[in-house]
Amino acid sequence: MQNKEYLMIPGPTPVPQNVLNAMSHPMFGHRTPRFAEMHKDIISKLQKVLQTRDDIFILTSSGTGGMEAAAANTITPGDKILTLVCGKFGERWSELGRRYGAEVIEENFTWGKPVNTDRVKELLNQHTDIKAVFATLNETSTGVINDIETLGSIISDTPALLVVDAISGAGGIEVKTSDWNIDILVTGSQKAMMMPPGLAVITVSQDAWKVIEKNNSPCYYFDLLKARKSSEKYNTPYTPAISLFVGLNAALDMLLEEGMNNVYTRHKVLRDAVREAANALGLQLMAAAEYASPTITSIYAPSGIGADDIRSTLKQEFGISFAGGQAQLKNKIFRIAHMGYTGKMDIITAISGLEMALSRAGYPVELGLGIQAAEKVFLRGQK
Amino acid sequence: MQNKEYLMIPGPTPVPQNVLNAMSHPMFGHRTPRFAEMHKDIISKLQKVLQTRDDIFILTSSGTGGMEAAAANTITPGDKILTLVCGKFGERWSELGRRYGAEVIEENFTWGKPVNTDRVKELLNQHTDIKAVFATLNETSTGVINDIETLGSIISDTPALLVVDAISGAGGIEVKTSDWNIDILVTGSQKAMMMPPGLAVITVSQDAWKVIEKNNSPCYYFDLLKARKSSEKYNTPYTPAISLFVGLNAALDMLLEEGMNNVYTRHKVLRDAVREAANALGLQLMAAAEYASPTITSIYAPSGIGADDIRSTLKQEFGISFAGGQAQLKNKIFRIAHMGYTGKMDIITAISGLEMALSRAGYPVELGLGIQAAEKVFLRGQK
Repeated sequence: MQNKEYLMIPGPTPVPQNVLNAMSHPMFGHRTPRFAEMHKDIISKLQKVLQTRDDIFILTSSGTGGMEAAAANTITPGDKILTLVCGKFGERWSELGRRYGAEVIEENFTWGKPVNTDRVKELLNQHTDIKAVFATLNETSTGVINDIETLGSIISDTPALLVVDAISGAGGIEVKTSDWNIDILVTGSQKAMMMPPGLAVITVSQDAWKVIEKNNSPCYYFDLLKARKSSEKYNTPYTPAISLFVGLNAALDMLLEEGMNNVYTRHKVLRDAVREAANALGLQLMAAAEYASPTITSIYAPSGIGADDIRSTLKQEFGISFAGGQAQLKNKIFRIAHMGYTGKMDIITAISGLEMALSRAGYPVELGLGIQAAEKVFLRGQK
Repeated sequence: MQNKEYLMIPGPTPVPQNVLNAMSHPMFGHRTPRFAEMHKDIISKLQKVLQTRDDIFILTSSGTGGMEAAAANTITPGDKILTLVCGKFGERWSELGRRYGAEVIEENFTWGKPVNTDRVKELLNQHTDIKAVFATLNETSTGVINDIETLGSIISDTPALLVVDAISGAGGIEVKTSDWNIDILVTGSQKAMMMPPGLAVITVSQDAWKVIEKNNSPCYYFDLLKARKSSEKYNTPYTPAISLFVGLNAALDMLLEEGMNNVYTRHKVLRDAVREAANALGLQLMAAAEYASPTITSIYAPSGIGADDIRSTLKQEFGISFAGGQAQLKNKIFRIAHMGYTGKMDIITAISGLEMALSRAGYPVELGLGIQAAEKVFLRGQK
C-alpha cells in the first residue's frame, strides 16, 4: 500500500489495466495481414476520435517525433512560417522551424492567456507569403486552450497551412480536424489517449500533401511520403512498436465505447471540480474560465509557499504526483492533470492531498472545503 | 490451439512471458528518480552486453531511427563516407548518407558473402578523406556476418569513424564495441534482445563526439547532443516509451542471468542445427560456414519450388513464420531466424514444419531426416 501512486501529471497518464494487459500480447509479424487489419482498424477509430477524413499515420516515437515529422516534411529552407507561442510547448515549433531553415515569425502571447486570433489575422495580412502557421491546441505549460476553430477559419482564407500540436488535448478535448481546416494535427499516445508513451499520431490534409510532395528535407525515419506509400497496404515503412499498437487499439475501443461526447464532458466536469476546489481553498488559478483547459489546470502556490514544496509533500506523504511550473513559472505554480483515464475519485484524491499538503506548509486551510466544492460540481451531474 | 504461432522471422522475435508481464506495469513519471534509476540500471546492463565503456542512449523509435541518429549526427553535407554493402540493410546506410548530403562511396560486395576487408583497406588508402565508414554486423537479408573486428582494426589506423548497424545481431552475437574500435553501434529491441519493437540503442565513442559536436544537421528528435545533456541525470530529452524501458530492463536481466557467453553459444548451436538439417534435406545454404550468421539462416528453395509457397504452407498449416527473400532473392530463398528467445525445440518445430511443407510441395523428402541432423547437433552438447 505504501507504494500506491496517483499520477496527475500531463503524461504519462494512468493506463487502464485492460490496455496494459492487451500490450502483453505475444509478438506477431508486422508484415502480415493480421497487423494490417489491426492497423486499418486503429486508423478508422482515430478518424472518428480526431473527426477527420484525412490520412492518418502512427509513428513509433514520442509526440515530439510527430512534431518533427510535421515541421520537417513541410518546411523548405527559406520558407516563412508563423509560430504562435503562449507557453513552453509553442516554443518547440519555433525551434523546429529554425532547425529546418525556416524564417520564423514567432508571435508571443502572455503565458496563461490564449493566442489572440485577431493578431494572427493582422500578421497574415501583413505577411502574405507565410507558408504555414504552427499552433498549439492545449498549452500544457499553462493550462490554456486555444481557439483552433477560429484560427482555422482565418487561415483557410490564405494559402498557409495550419499545423496543430494537439498532444495533450486530443482524445480529451473535442477537435474537429477536418471541419476546422487543420492541415496537420499531431498527437501523442500518453496523454488523453490513455496509453503509455511511444506513439505519435499525425493527420495530413490534401493541401498539406501538395506541400510535402515538393519538400526534400533529409529526414528519413519521419518521411511522410514513405509512410504514405507503406500505408497503401496498412503497412509502416519501419518496424512499428507492435505492443503499443495493440494497446492503442484497446484504448480507442474504450474511448469509443464511452462515447466521445461523454469523454469530453467528463474532462470538463473534472476541470470544473478542480477549479471550484482551488477557489474554495483561496488559491489563484492561472487561466480564466473561458479558456481553461479541460485536461490540465495550473494553480499558483500561495505567496510565501514554494509550489515545489507542496508537490514534494504530496509525493512523499500521499504518493500523488502533480506537475511543476516550467521556465519562469518554476516553483510558482503546480499543475494538476485530469486527462485520459481519470475520473471523479481521482480528483477527490488530488484535492484532498492538496488540502493536507497546504496544511503541512502552514497555509491556513479549512480541511474539507476544497472537497466540498468538488463534490458540489459532481453532484450537479453531467452538466 | 489452431492459432498457436511460431515466429521465426528476424524481428519481431518471441518475447518471454515475464518481459510481456513486466511491460504491463502501471505508468510512472519519466522525470522521476524512479525512472532515472531504472534508466541508469539499463545502461549499465547494456554496457555489459555491448562490451563498451562508451555513452549509450536509448531512443524511442525502431532501429532505423537509431541508424538515422548515427548518420544525421555525424554527416555534414559534402562529407565523404564509405558504405559497405553486402545486402539490403547495408543499402540503408547509403540512402541515409545521401539524405544528409554526404558524398557516398558505396562499395558493393556479392550478396551472400561478407565485406572483403582487404578491399576496404584499399579504399581507405585511396580516399584518405573518408570521414566515416558505415558497416553492418549481421546482414539480415542474406544471413551473413561481417568481420567487424578486422574492419575496426583497419579503420582505427585512419581518421575515419566506424559506424556499425548491429540491429539483428547484438545480444545474440558477441560484439566487443570498445575493443573493436566501433565508434557508433546501433541496435534495436526486437531482435536478439528479446523485446517488442520500439526502442533503438546507440553507443557513442569519444572520437564520435568530436565529430558530433561540430555537426549541425537539422534533426531534432534524434539530436544526440540533447540526449547527452539529458543523460547527465539519466533523463531523456523527450518522453520515452516507459513500458518498453521496463521490458528491456527485464529482458537484459534474463540475458545476463543466462550469461552472455552461454547466450552466444546457444545461438551458434541453433545455427548449426538449422544448417545441418538443411544439408540433410539436400537444400542449399546461402552463406558458407565461416561467415554464417548465428542469428539467421538463408536457405534456397529447391529448384522448381517457390520459397514463398513453402512459407505459405508453413504459415497456414503449422502456424510457423519464416521470412522470405528480399529484392533479387524474392521467392528464391527463405530465412529462418533463430535469435533472441529461441531454444532447441523451436528449431525442431521449424525443421519439422519445413520437412512437411517440402513434402506438400512435391519435393522428395525423407521425413525426419532434417530433425535427425538437428538432434545430432544438440546431442553433441554445448560445443
